[in-house]
Amino acid sequence: MSKRILLDIEYDGSGYCGWQRQLNGPTVQQEIEKALYQLTKEKIGIIGASRTDAGVHALGQRAHFDMKSSIPANKLPFALNACLPRDIRVIKGQEVSPVFHARFDARGKEYGYHIFNRRQASALYRQYRAHAPLPLDTQRMQKAADYLVGQHDFAAFEAAGGTANTTIRDIAGVSVTRWQEEITLTVYGTAFLYNMVRIIAGTLIYVGQGRLPEDVFRRAIATGDRLVLGPTAPAQGLCLNHIDYEGVQ
Amino acid sequence: MSKRILLDIEYDGSGYCGWQRQLNGPTVQQEIEKALYQLTKEKIGIIGASRTDAGVHALGQRAHFDMKSSIPANKLPFALNACLPRDIRVIKGQEVSPVFHARFDARGKEYGYHIFNRRQASALYRQYRAHAPLPLDTQRMQKAADYLVGQHDFAAFEAAGGTANTTIRDIAGVSVTRWQEEITLTVYGTAFLYNMVRIIAGTLIYVGQGRLPEDVFRRAIATGDRLVLGPTAPAQGLCLNHIDYEGVQ
Repeated sequence: MSKRILLDIEYDGSGYCGWQRQLNGPTVQQEIEKALYQLTKEKIGIIGASRTDAGVHALGQRAHFDMKSSIPANKLPFALNACLPRDIRVIKGQEVSPVFHARFDARGKEYGYHIFNRRQASALYRQYRAHAPLPLDTQRMQKAADYLVGQHDFAAFEAAGGTANTTIRDIAGVSVTRWQEEITLTVYGTAFLYNMVRIIAGTLIYVGQGRLPEDVFRRAIATGDRLVLGPTAPAQGLCLNHIDYEGVQ
Repeated sequence: MSKRILLDIEYDGSGYCGWQRQLNGPTVQQEIEKALYQLTKEKIGIIGASRTDAGVHALGQRAHFDMKSSIPANKLPFALNACLPRDIRVIKGQEVSPVFHARFDARGKEYGYHIFNRRQASALYRQYRAHAPLPLDTQRMQKAADYLVGQHDFAAFEAAGGTANTTIRDIAGVSVTRWQEEITLTVYGTAFLYNMVRIIAGTLIYVGQGRLPEDVFRRAIATGDRLVLGPTAPAQGLCLNHIDYEGVQ
């Protein structure tokens, strides 16, 4: 009898070609599947809630899979971490319903986008922050971000290569906070288009510099025109914070 | 005519054998001296305020040197950063008095020691945190830390290899703060003995676990016995935050 397991996973994306299994480089999914094989000798394919890009980090990625092994789910973090590289940590393991799906059942996702706002870049956190050397007006950024909230057609916010059936998405909230030189954008929504959060971040950086108007997102939603928006902000500033499910902690 | 320059420097110590020039590996001092040579063609030796160990980080190291170059001091950050690896950033440059000394004139130093307190280690910040898997009682740690404040003979707090003339030091304050899984010890004092902050951190971790008494520092100061204290905490948790001088910002 196999059982369905849900893992909570944290990773430093700096050394990986993203989450998803692929041929041209190491990915987080492959590393975890390798560790599962070492542990159980079962060839297990895992399904992540979010397919993060190369260089993107996660504090709260979640992934499910089925296994026959009798290892208790709550022992999986210790057992897997012993097989995994130090830049990937399994934080939690739990058994879930056999019909649970990490991706399709996600009710909400929170992403953080981290900006280091100082003339000289950060030495210490260079892999975890986008560098914005010019002063940013975070009040202006917050006002602009408020236009995102609600259900809209975000067609303008999708990078080439997106494969979504619909570009309508719900954004529940966006906050822009500053602590000294660190600016954090926190975005919560049901789901996001390909590169959507990085396009939002890149646009908000331009808004903060005064290079784009405060209502730029309203215009982009109205016109569906990608060119109204700013550039896609770099991958290393992005972190998948959290995935929510109904009835699963 | 040469002028004396003071630099503020941030670095990620993970890839270096510490601050000080040496033969068996790259050091932060050597990298900056190399960059100064590239820029000015002068062979310049720099003097750092604090000789941080291998793996120790700095947000606010400071170092002085003399140069003949006419490059304005405030242009040095941009000019040097163009020659430096990305894990070292010069944040500020200023001209100081020709008798100023980065090390001997330091009036106060602040170190931070960062602990990640969760069963599973941090993937994202593994190079910047010590991992303490067992729960730590930060109130107990703070009470213990308060015994350090004042002028004391800290002979018990010096690792083998220390070269100080006296082991009397002044500690102005120690704070223990928690934010979620992150515990930060902040220590401010005039000067520190070799490995002193890491011995304090290692001892406070044991106090937080209940393995050492709350008055352990009082006993160590009274007896001068290193064995009363806990282990030396790992280098990667330590960060030189700030150096203060009289009349120099």
